Amino acid sequence: MAERFEIVEKALLSLLNDKKYSTLRDILITMNPSDIAALFDSLEDAKIPLLFRLLPKELAAETFVEMEIDAQELLIRGFSDNELKEVVDELYVDDAAALVEEMPANVVKRILKSADPEMRFAINQILRYDENSAGSIMTTEYVSLRPQMTVEEAILRIRRQGVDKETIYTCYVTDSQRRLVGMVTVKDLLLAEDDETPIRDIMLTNVIFATTSTDQEEVAQMLSKYNFLAMPVVDAESRMVGIVTFDDAMDVMEDEATEDIEMMAGMTPSEKPYLKSSVFELFKHRIPWLMLLMVTSTFTGLIITSFEDALAAQVALTAFIPMLMGTGGNCGSQSSVSIIRALSLGELKLNDILRVVWKEIRTAVLCGVVLAVFNFGKIWLIDRIMLGNESITLMVDLVVCCSLAVTVLLAKLVGAVLPIGAQALKLDPAVMASPFITSIVDAVSLLVYFMFANLMLGL
Amino acid sequence: MAERFEIVEKALLSLLNDKKYSTLRDILITMNPSDIAALFDSLEDAKIPLLFRLLPKELAAETFVEMEIDAQELLIRGFSDNELKEVVDELYVDDAAALVEEMPANVVKRILKSADPEMRFAINQILRYDENSAGSIMTTEYVSLRPQMTVEEAILRIRRQGVDKETIYTCYVTDSQRRLVGMVTVKDLLLAEDDETPIRDIMLTNVIFATTSTDQEEVAQMLSKYNFLAMPVVDAESRMVGIVTFDDAMDVMEDEATEDIEMMAGMTPSEKPYLKSSVFELFKHRIPWLMLLMVTSTFTGLIITSFEDALAAQVALTAFIPMLMGTGGNCGSQSSVSIIRALSLGELKLNDILRVVWKEIRTAVLCGVVLAVFNFGKIWLIDRIMLGNESITLMVDLVVCCSLAVTVLLAKLVGAVLPIGAQALKLDPAVMASPFITSIVDAVSLLVYFMFANLMLGL
Repeated sequence: MAERFEIVEKALLSLLNDKKYSTLRDILITMNPSDIAALFDSLEDAKIPLLFRLLPKELAAETFVEMEIDAQELLIRGFSDNELKEVVDELYVDDAAALVEEMPANVVKRILKSADPEMRFAINQILRYDENSAGSIMTTEYVSLRPQMTVEEAILRIRRQGVDKETIYTCYVTDSQRRLVGMVTVKDLLLAEDDETPIRDIMLTNVIFATTSTDQEEVAQMLSKYNFLAMPVVDAESRMVGIVTFDDAMDVMEDEATEDIEMMAGMTPSEKPYLKSSVFELFKHRIPWLMLLMVTSTFTGLIITSFEDALAAQVALTAFIPMLMGTGGNCGSQSSVSIIRALSLGELKLNDILRVVWKEIRTAVLCGVVLAVFNFGKIWLIDRIMLGNESITLMVDLVVCCSLAVTVLLAKLVGAVLPIGAQALKLDPAVMASPFITSIVDAVSLLVYFMFANLMLGL
Repeated sequence: MAERFEIVEKALLSLLNDKKYSTLRDILITMNPSDIAALFDSLEDAKIPLLFRLLPKELAAETFVEMEIDAQELLIRGFSDNELKEVVDELYVDDAAALVEEMPANVVKRILKSADPEMRFAINQILRYDENSAGSIMTTEYVSLRPQMTVEEAILRIRRQGVDKETIYTCYVTDSQRRLVGMVTVKDLLLAEDDETPIRDIMLTNVIFATTSTDQEEVAQMLSKYNFLAMPVVDAESRMVGIVTFDDAMDVMEDEATEDIEMMAGMTPSEKPYLKSSVFELFKHRIPWLMLLMVTSTFTGLIITSFEDALAAQVALTAFIPMLMGTGGNCGSQSSVSIIRALSLGELKLNDILRVVWKEIRTAVLCGVVLAVFNFGKIWLIDRIMLGNESITLMVDLVVCCSLAVTVLLAKLVGAVLPIGAQALKLDPAVMASPFITSIVDAVSLLVYFMFANLMLGL
């Protein structure tokens, strides 16, 4: 698929260069807006408005929504007031609100000026809600029905109103106070045996809903759990105010997973795709954690310095420091990442902490013992006998392996407890991932190591 | 929401214990199948069949699909042939196929025996396709129309056939050879102005489709990109064979993100949720990488051993090893994780490699210089002046910071190139994440460090 699309893209660009506009237009109108938008991304700035003006009105608006923000801004700045109005009129309210949120102030002013009053009001409503809340990603355009309508009346209403609604397949039944009382799908309506049946009799009354302040990640998970096309959103007075559709939920899921992954690797999350991010933006997202972790490693340095004499007396000990710290770090990040993911998928709750700790202890003992025994043999056979490192005595080997087992246990505990602790403090557990935990585990493993060396080798 | 659900759950369980079955049933029938399934998960085994038999037939089947595999197996083993047939009859084909794939052989035999011949054929079709392919997650139940039908005939057909189809909202138009020629939505049909219009005139002909062998992750991304409710799947002869619906795509996206995250943290991916995994399963998924990485750290040990004399001469050098390796590891994992995620979202292609390398080099130089300069000052002010470590000379400080800058550069390069290399070799780029890259970077940073020490301190 991807290769085929690149060929089409090349063909279209060469048509544009040859000024074969009508052929180009004939091809474009058969294409999906997302694909046309991708075409704009590989276009030089000067040609963007030219290509855009080839598109028929509705397709132009649909394509506009899918475009990268830079291209959108460029287009808006070049639009006449009339052109802007035509695009804005075709936008769904949630897309218009997202646009307003991302554009610089002077562009926003022009957008709001060209929206009709009703849309302007709806945009402002949506922008009032917290970023990352259901309110901020919902659309206010949905089909609402009344309980006393018949199936026939409902279908008629959908046919009359449907064009402007983002989804017509799930309709919401509200009472005279706009309170959500039920839900009915177009499938139910089409499959109803009698056209005269009132909606009241076929609607589902136990409707699952989100409130405007529900976290967007939770809404996406609910949609995925219940396999809903859309989730109704109500305000504090239980009045229906909008819906979140499955396609927006999919985007939220993807963005939240990316955000978690970035945080787990010690980066502040970015909303821009990798290739679109400038070097300075990448730098900005990466340097804070690097800086912080570099500074915290002062402690590991201090620990080593204070055991300098021991290390000088038993030179073989230094060689195992990277292995100990590395294995500890890996164990810690395995646990923390498992738990962060489970928390973010809602599989784990705060009061599961004891079960988690108990599970991690047992897993850690298994891993620790296996690693330690294996490592004991490996050090003796490879490092001592094969490589002939005479400074490795049986006692040194034992110190290394005891430290390894204890480090694994402590690393897995730290890795399990910190993310849950972060969640309890209402912080994002993903902050507590590998880089952070590695720093702690580095220090812990050194302390354990020198403690064993002290005890068993008398250093 | 989550808290409210726990209260409901408690109330229902106490009704079950008090044998108030009819009240229980009255409440259950108003609930969503996913929520009822969650209830089963917190039930002791003996009570599962009891509660299940309270559910009306259709709801029972819908709930069954959402249940955990252990509970499903337990129920099937307890079912009479008749009961099993009732449940299987109500399943969608893709759910039935998933069930067959997960159950032990003797249970599978019973399931297939109770399926009617048509469903048995469809299940076998789906099971023929590779795991993780579009064919393996599609359902064969969709609404197909003919181009010459009128809008009215199409609506009639949907009303007649719709009950058994997983989605009726997107209908696929096929010719007499079952080749996919167009697509029409129920919205188009309902909003069509004339009931006599032939489907041919309103259908979209440039349909985007997947083939049975398309990777499931790619299908999910296409659905998300195009905001489709369902993606048609065709076989090698362009014949329409099924559809992948958005809810299955959401599950795929979630699973693939989890899989990537697990692999990035050095675990072999598991399909079970954390709390459902036994200690031994966790152990099995975690030990292979730990073992491998522990062994590879033999190299770092060897490097240190071969520079033992240098370290003995300049004791201060040892203290900075953890900081160097740690910072290098963090830099490498930042780059690798950014690039792995971009690859898996399809934002990056193989031929972008030069752009990526160039971007990483510039970012690395920025990060490296800032970290090195800052670290130079920190070591001098804190370690030397504040903590009074006399063995740190200006030259030692310089060796550490030059090594740091070079390590950052090399780490970011390794982190960028390896995942792209893995992709080129058709391996999963996620394998090349933090733990793996850290191991390489550990060795690299030590070599760089000792090289600078050798050059600048003459050790």
